[in-house]
Amino acid sequence: MTAYQNMTPAERTAEYARLQAEYAALKARGMNLNIARGKPSKAQLDMVSDIFQLMQKPEDYISDGIDVRSYGELGGLPAAKRLFADLLGCRPEQVFAAGNASLQLMYGIISEAYTHGLLHSPRPWCKEETVKWLCPTPGYDRHFKITETFGFALIAIPMTDGGPDMDAVEKAVKDPAVKGMWCVPKYSNPDGVIYSDETIRRIAALKPAAPDFLLMWDNAYSVHEFEGDYVPFPDILSLCAEQGNGDMVFEFASTSKMTLPGAGIACFACSEANMAYMEKLFNVQLISFDKVNQQRHVLYLKDKAHILELMKRHAAIMGPKFRCVVDTLDREIAPLGIASWQRPRGGYFVSLNAMPGTAKRTLALCSEAGVTMTGAGAAFPYGVDPQDSNIRISPSLPPVEELETAMAVLCVCLKLAALEKLGV
Amino acid sequence: MTAYQNMTPAERTAEYARLQAEYAALKARGMNLNIARGKPSKAQLDMVSDIFQLMQKPEDYISDGIDVRSYGELGGLPAAKRLFADLLGCRPEQVFAAGNASLQLMYGIISEAYTHGLLHSPRPWCKEETVKWLCPTPGYDRHFKITETFGFALIAIPMTDGGPDMDAVEKAVKDPAVKGMWCVPKYSNPDGVIYSDETIRRIAALKPAAPDFLLMWDNAYSVHEFEGDYVPFPDILSLCAEQGNGDMVFEFASTSKMTLPGAGIACFACSEANMAYMEKLFNVQLISFDKVNQQRHVLYLKDKAHILELMKRHAAIMGPKFRCVVDTLDREIAPLGIASWQRPRGGYFVSLNAMPGTAKRTLALCSEAGVTMTGAGAAFPYGVDPQDSNIRISPSLPPVEELETAMAVLCVCLKLAALEKLGV
Repeated sequence: MTAYQNMTPAERTAEYARLQAEYAALKARGMNLNIARGKPSKAQLDMVSDIFQLMQKPEDYISDGIDVRSYGELGGLPAAKRLFADLLGCRPEQVFAAGNASLQLMYGIISEAYTHGLLHSPRPWCKEETVKWLCPTPGYDRHFKITETFGFALIAIPMTDGGPDMDAVEKAVKDPAVKGMWCVPKYSNPDGVIYSDETIRRIAALKPAAPDFLLMWDNAYSVHEFEGDYVPFPDILSLCAEQGNGDMVFEFASTSKMTLPGAGIACFACSEANMAYMEKLFNVQLISFDKVNQQRHVLYLKDKAHILELMKRHAAIMGPKFRCVVDTLDREIAPLGIASWQRPRGGYFVSLNAMPGTAKRTLALCSEAGVTMTGAGAAFPYGVDPQDSNIRISPSLPPVEELETAMAVLCVCLKLAALEKLGV
Repeated sequence: MTAYQNMTPAERTAEYARLQAEYAALKARGMNLNIARGKPSKAQLDMVSDIFQLMQKPEDYISDGIDVRSYGELGGLPAAKRLFADLLGCRPEQVFAAGNASLQLMYGIISEAYTHGLLHSPRPWCKEETVKWLCPTPGYDRHFKITETFGFALIAIPMTDGGPDMDAVEKAVKDPAVKGMWCVPKYSNPDGVIYSDETIRRIAALKPAAPDFLLMWDNAYSVHEFEGDYVPFPDILSLCAEQGNGDMVFEFASTSKMTLPGAGIACFACSEANMAYMEKLFNVQLISFDKVNQQRHVLYLKDKAHILELMKRHAAIMGPKFRCVVDTLDREIAPLGIASWQRPRGGYFVSLNAMPGTAKRTLALCSEAGVTMTGAGAAFPYGVDPQDSNIRISPSLPPVEELETAMAVLCVCLKLAALEKLGV
């Protein structure tokens, strides 16, 4: 195969005609495939549905002397705190165990910053002239949307192979209007990057001008390797505390991709001072999150070692799908020089950079052929990719056979869009 | 028995001495009883714990074609919407089925009004100079706390036997700064009053000056009769709509006191226009609430008729406790002329009005003798009862034997405090 840029115009025209026929044939199959969202597959859900067999014995209703069925325990069951602390490497008293959605906790904490202010806020953020926010990009659309909805000015920070560009971050936080930053430190969404030790050290040591700078540390994929062994990861709470930044960080995690996406449990972790402050605010919102489901998860997941065993079983389902994606790209796209991508070893995404100016066109072609993917630009602040290049692939949901078809469609569409861009 | 006010000073002194001895004997028992909160008892929890036997069969994981274990369906399962619509007498498309806490939904909607504004808001409430809020009083402390935490000015509206004093409400809503009102329309917390048809009609027909006036209709005790048969109750959504006020009201309900206090499901119900607006805002906060627990409740509760059967079984546990409270008061306190109380037929509270100026003293005496009750003033805006008279009794949690003891303590304390007030 010849790289498209090295082809003669005639060669490109012939290739384009050949691909159009291939595309028409794929389209004629009337497919309806979805690789838009990082959803666990049915096989993964079935694998963990024995969780419903728990909570049958009356003694299961009691945890550390607490009747999990009743009101109370705003910050969650002590046993659920211990489980998350084990997972994250922090202390149980730093954990607030909650409901099924870590996103809800993230929204909740930023909303509280907006309405009431954080522990070190001079005033609630709704009383600030401007709030600016750092968005390592490409990043998670739902993160960006939260900060966008409160009217914050989103500042894109380029991602490197070791995490956010720290020179850019250190410079940006000198502006007192910069109030926080989103981070997905392990298997970042969508690049699948693990922040380097150096990056993490520099983040923990930040000296933001804002006294209430909020590091949103979404450790969504802390044990989510699908290739190779578990990669240990440092505890950001103690690293920040060592740097005198103990109250700067809120960490988040959930079991959505260990047990059930819609019915797991989530947590935030923070300094004891932040915890006391936040519990006072959350106490106005509700009496407690669902402790029965917390107990169900404590009984099912047991501890970190047991979780890592379970994640190996998820990896056995996830691994072949990710290999299908990158192997197909290696085979079909690499020789043409029209895109680049990461080879993540964990997380839920493959981030692909198509030839600039072709992402939207590629996805429109995919959609027309019945393959739904994450919208172009989704990984960028305000949903706008200035290069029109990034495409997020979420291979987890469909079975491998369907994924192979979806990838075949994607590759044809990438090629068609690139040839159009090069001028056929 | 002679009413205390008709006693001679010498009689009062003798009575006081007699009661002090009685009090000392009760105190010496070293009791630790709690009638502070409307918590279902262990017997009620055990009665419904067969709910955990559901969700065993793979077909239970699918509801209307939706895999309840996965992400999605922000507004809840259609079957959960149907269940709540049946209960409340509204339409399923007017229902948002959520997690375990209706309080969280109430906070969420007021918080959205504050940060983003409601459908008809000229601006978010955080941009308003002043927001005022109507609090039918005595009322629910957690309601008042939500509106207090956002800095709203709380305006007490007197409660009558038929609900809030509507002359006062109609006058108050002429002020455009008055943005809303709390209501517990059936078995109001704490008075146990059912709003009269006339009151409800006048509420639905309100003409508030604020275009975004928010009627918070917390139908927490819609089927919670513990004496006699179910009392039908009108659908506030259609009543408001008939008056051209369709977007004025948000109604709330939960199964916290049908199934499990900490692990039920909750909903809000509103006009379709409000629903479209709120779903857009909630979509930023989370992907979905716990649909597995929604499905568990759909399978367990089935429909309104089946819920009413279940509530009869709760009533068999609750009824004797409430009869113990009012019968004890009738016997011990009524002849003395030092307090008055309601005889509710549903809900979770008995509201007692002690001799003005004696509520705090009574509760301090109770506490000293090992009986914890809701703090004095809790049912009033800012926690201040100007009369220092109202005492909320929550008899649901302890077994009847313990409740009898707690009531004996309360009666002695009421008498001591009254005699002190009259001057012994």
